[in-house]
Amino acid sequence: MKSHTKKLVLNIKDRMEFVNITPQIEDAVQESGVEEGLCLVNAMHITASVFINDDEPGLHHDYKRWLEELAPFDPSPERYHHNRTGEDNADAHHKRQIMGREVVVAITEGRLDFGPWEQIFYGEFDGRRQKRVLIKIIGE
Amino acid sequence: MKSHTKKLVLNIKDRMEFVNITPQIEDAVQESGVEEGLCLVNAMHITASVFINDDEPGLHHDYKRWLEELAPFDPSPERYHHNRTGEDNADAHHKRQIMGREVVVAITEGRLDFGPWEQIFYGEFDGRRQKRVLIKIIGE
Amino acid sequence: MKSHTKKLVLNIKDRMEFVNITPQIEDAVQESGVEEGLCLVNAMHITASVFINDDEPGLHHDYKRWLEELAPFDPSPERYHHNRTGEDNADAHHKRQIMGREVVVAITEGRLDFGPWEQIFYGEFDGRRQKRVLIKIIGE
Repeated sequence: MKSHTKKLVLNIKDRMEFVNITPQIEDAVQESGVEEGLCLVNAMHITASVFINDDEPGLHHDYKRWLEELAPFDPSPERYHHNRTGEDNADAHHKRQIMGREVVVAITEGRLDFGPWEQIFYGEFDGRRQKRVLIKIIGE
Repeated sequence: MKSHTKKLVLNIKDRMEFVNITPQIEDAVQESGVEEGLCLVNAMHITASVFINDDEPGLHHDYKRWLEELAPFDPSPERYHHNRTGEDNADAHHKRQIMGREVVVAITEGRLDFGPWEQIFYGEFDGRRQKRVLIKIIGE
Repeated sequence: MKSHTKKLVLNIKDRMEFVNITPQIEDAVQESGVEEGLCLVNAMHITASVFINDDEPGLHHDYKRWLEELAPFDPSPERYHHNRTGEDNADAHHKRQIMGREVVVAITEGRLDFGPWEQIFYGEFDGRRQKRVLIKIIGE
């Protein structure tokens, strides 16, 4: 069994933003030499997501508006008890649960085994500081 | 290490529907010859889900009503910017994020290692065309 | 390839509660002898979740309030058709979909490869009876 571990570092300027990290994941699969296996990609921070969906700006606009409706940003200590700790990012912890922490993608014949529109995104909900994404590949 | 890859093809008549695909996943585990390992099952399309829950029609009715509340179907370009691309399925991209893209199930002693009520479903949110599900099994 | 399977038994007194199970998962990784691999942790019941987030009581309070808003407890057969079966836990099946069934965590150099605040929680939404969590580790 082969394994390969890689960490990506991201610096997102906005509070909420989605970044297509598919090319970096494909690079990691190449580096691993794995032909048949599984590739885990997860946010290492708890106010961020890794998810698979469409690389379409209108959809990303829609996701942001929708997540803001489901879990509005509110730094006050009234709405979110988490913000009584001095944090202002309780909303980001909620948005991340909707979009998910991780994806697991099949590797087949040395490549990510994707459907026609699948792309891997890093979803940031509390940006403006350095964050990391973990890639772990196992297989043969 | 052994690996096994299989793709299921589904044709769902309705826009939103849930299909129990547990028997097909069990068949794939048998075919793989894997006794101890992991089984990834994911939708290959971005307006569909694979999830694990109960095979109970009342619950599926409830899920459909709830997902329609959280992300209503609306083909107009006003509510969802994604629908300005000529698509009408922005709601389906949202519903899929709630229900998830994939499940990873343990294989123990050659079988899916399930709790008493766990069943694997394909969740379609933009049906009436052919879709695929990927099964990837690794182990020994 | 090595593999290790372990089941945790939990008895939650309240209907909804979150329990940090990270120490038990770390124990299982030690027992497995796996240095590089993947660790699946999933709820074996369909009204419970396993998720990764912050061990902060204010945040857990916020999650409970938010999940109750998104999918209120209502044992009557009117709101949820699932409760026409004699069950009263339809809300719990919905809450579990928001928080997720499972996490997959990388194992690197014999340890869970975590970001600074990541902790693994069992999320119970229909407690007051015995439930199980499955840990499956594969690697080398």
